[in-house]
Amino acid sequence: MISNKMAALAQNNSVIRAMFEEGNRLAAQFGRENVFDFSLGNPNFPPPEAVKSAIRDVLDDTSPVDIHGYMSNAGFPAVREAVAHSINRRHGTSFSSGNIIMSVGAAGALNSVLKTLLNPGDEVAAFAPYFVEYGNYVANYDGALKVAPPNIPTFQPSAESLETVITAKTRAVIINTPNNPTGVIYSEESLRAIARVLTKKSKEFGAPIYLISDEPYRELAYDGVCVPYVTKLYPDTFVCYSWSKSLSLPGERIGYIVIPSELEDFSLIFDAVSIATRVLGFVNAPSLIQLAVARCLEAQTDICAYDQNRRALYDGLTSLGFECVFPQGAFYMWVKAPGGDDKAFVAAAKDENILFVPGTSFACPGYARIAYCVAKSTIERSMPGFKKIAAKLGVSK
Amino acid sequence: MISNKMAALAQNNSVIRAMFEEGNRLAAQFGRENVFDFSLGNPNFPPPEAVKSAIRDVLDDTSPVDIHGYMSNAGFPAVREAVAHSINRRHGTSFSSGNIIMSVGAAGALNSVLKTLLNPGDEVAAFAPYFVEYGNYVANYDGALKVAPPNIPTFQPSAESLETVITAKTRAVIINTPNNPTGVIYSEESLRAIARVLTKKSKEFGAPIYLISDEPYRELAYDGVCVPYVTKLYPDTFVCYSWSKSLSLPGERIGYIVIPSELEDFSLIFDAVSIATRVLGFVNAPSLIQLAVARCLEAQTDICAYDQNRRALYDGLTSLGFECVFPQGAFYMWVKAPGGDDKAFVAAAKDENILFVPGTSFACPGYARIAYCVAKSTIERSMPGFKKIAAKLGVSK
Repeated sequence: MISNKMAALAQNNSVIRAMFEEGNRLAAQFGRENVFDFSLGNPNFPPPEAVKSAIRDVLDDTSPVDIHGYMSNAGFPAVREAVAHSINRRHGTSFSSGNIIMSVGAAGALNSVLKTLLNPGDEVAAFAPYFVEYGNYVANYDGALKVAPPNIPTFQPSAESLETVITAKTRAVIINTPNNPTGVIYSEESLRAIARVLTKKSKEFGAPIYLISDEPYRELAYDGVCVPYVTKLYPDTFVCYSWSKSLSLPGERIGYIVIPSELEDFSLIFDAVSIATRVLGFVNAPSLIQLAVARCLEAQTDICAYDQNRRALYDGLTSLGFECVFPQGAFYMWVKAPGGDDKAFVAAAKDENILFVPGTSFACPGYARIAYCVAKSTIERSMPGFKKIAAKLGVSK
Repeated sequence: MISNKMAALAQNNSVIRAMFEEGNRLAAQFGRENVFDFSLGNPNFPPPEAVKSAIRDVLDDTSPVDIHGYMSNAGFPAVREAVAHSINRRHGTSFSSGNIIMSVGAAGALNSVLKTLLNPGDEVAAFAPYFVEYGNYVANYDGALKVAPPNIPTFQPSAESLETVITAKTRAVIINTPNNPTGVIYSEESLRAIARVLTKKSKEFGAPIYLISDEPYRELAYDGVCVPYVTKLYPDTFVCYSWSKSLSLPGERIGYIVIPSELEDFSLIFDAVSIATRVLGFVNAPSLIQLAVARCLEAQTDICAYDQNRRALYDGLTSLGFECVFPQGAFYMWVKAPGGDDKAFVAAAKDENILFVPGTSFACPGYARIAYCVAKSTIERSMPGFKKIAAKLGVSK
């Protein structure tokens, strides 16, 4: 009684739900404080104070009809202008409001862009490991996701492997940097190599292959590592940004799309993405929070707290003998499964009331993702459990 | 360089945009105050004070991580429970949180439901005149919208004409009451007749035909006219509600879906709609405004002001000789085009700097929609213009 596409998704969803319910079962049995849930990318840190002040100020100084009313599908012009200026100031670009479409988070942004680009049977490429929803988003428009294999052990995207999955049907490549699940920041060198491949292949096939840069973790970079601004390296790029992590606002569904004027068929595509936003039922990004984030463009979540978690978890796990990718950004630790079996690793952890996600869920078996956007004490108190897992799986220093 | 579907939409969109730009051109030429724009359903009245207080209270008494964080795709359990209780109290139903999914407005709600139900080639029926986006929403999932002809002059939906468009491929029927564009409230008699047809046809074809009740105007009913609660008349119903009009929050994108436990394949479908909400990129309804509306469930927009507009416009137009459907609800006046040519009517109005939408845009030529969610003075000051239109088109009392 449901569509074939949804039947397949409902079937698949039960795996994730099973993990969620297992967490609840364990919490009921052992107490919530004795369950160590590293499975979700849900920030445990509050938004900066500036967000609350901004919401209050908007309520005080703006007419309610303007705060809560419709605006053009692309968003409030003044908000789009403020966003463009903020990007320009930080990245040396030269965008205007005419390059910005406010979106219902990065997920809404990706869907509006994919709806605009894809005919049935078109292909979109991504690098493993990748955020599992990309496949669902592409399937919404009857496209097919083609996956370039993981580049072990650096997890930098490999332009060579990208080249092997690009065909005449490829309309776009999705990248995500800082990366979920690896924590790797794609280097300028890696991005330039990707740009070279896309330029060559666009010419070969006589149609642009667009880059879609999914950037919810842009502001979460540690040790001053640079996150290159992708439109400067490849103009046929859509940037899909979200404040979910940078301002800890994941429930608010607020982000934006950058479409550079240099992008091929800019006007046609900009208009089409706006229309797609309407036709898909987003209509526009939520209005009050649009006005609020425009006043917090220089605010930041507490990245030092994430950094402390990063170091505590990395030091703890490596001292036990686990092999981890040292994260440059985001809030995920990408850990090699002892013996190479990520499902066995996840199962052994569950015996210690520790929950995290197998790499198989990101098209990269043999690894696992441990989300450290949790209280630091959760990391510290989980270490005896990790020690038992290490013993059980024969990990040694 | 854009998908075939979007190319068609972009082409079509230029008609609506042309009207919008014409309005701006006229405003620049004659001054905004001399242009009478009745084209958009954008409430001109502010939300009730309770909304602002509720947002402030949520900010003050709830932890920021809880206000702005992720929750399950269906929404905050406490919000869903409060919504269910409010519906039960007012309509004598017996819903719980398990029947409610919070949505990104009614547009998001409709898309999540249609994604759940439709395979390519499936059909959805609607009654003319209907909100033009229904066709786009159905096309998102490769379905086809089948339109029952308008029932002139009452514009009550005709069960007989519905029966003629239902086939073995029909998966759902969309209704909208109080109706955009006619202002008609579907009577219990009309709804019972629809229910009888759907029950008969579901049996005949061996699969349920669902009713989808699009209800952004539910609270906007005048003179105490009853708006029947549809799930009580036909259990295989999805209610798609929005606070856009009832609390004047169209920019916030906040609404909900009701799925009754009695609906065929309830559990499977409830889960699938939640997943569709995630996979389409909505993820969840915006969080702060979810928490705020849950505290304003008994608040109301100023319906007396709409009522005054309704009477002023109806009296003004009919005294000039125009034939109007007297609106029972919503904030639209449905006016017969003098001579039967709605495009000529709209063109003659534009000469007087008066803007409204031809019935052709709602699959019902020969009529026009005048949105009276404007300042009352706009209605009063437009009357000399309407008088000239009447004279020009030979309307007489």
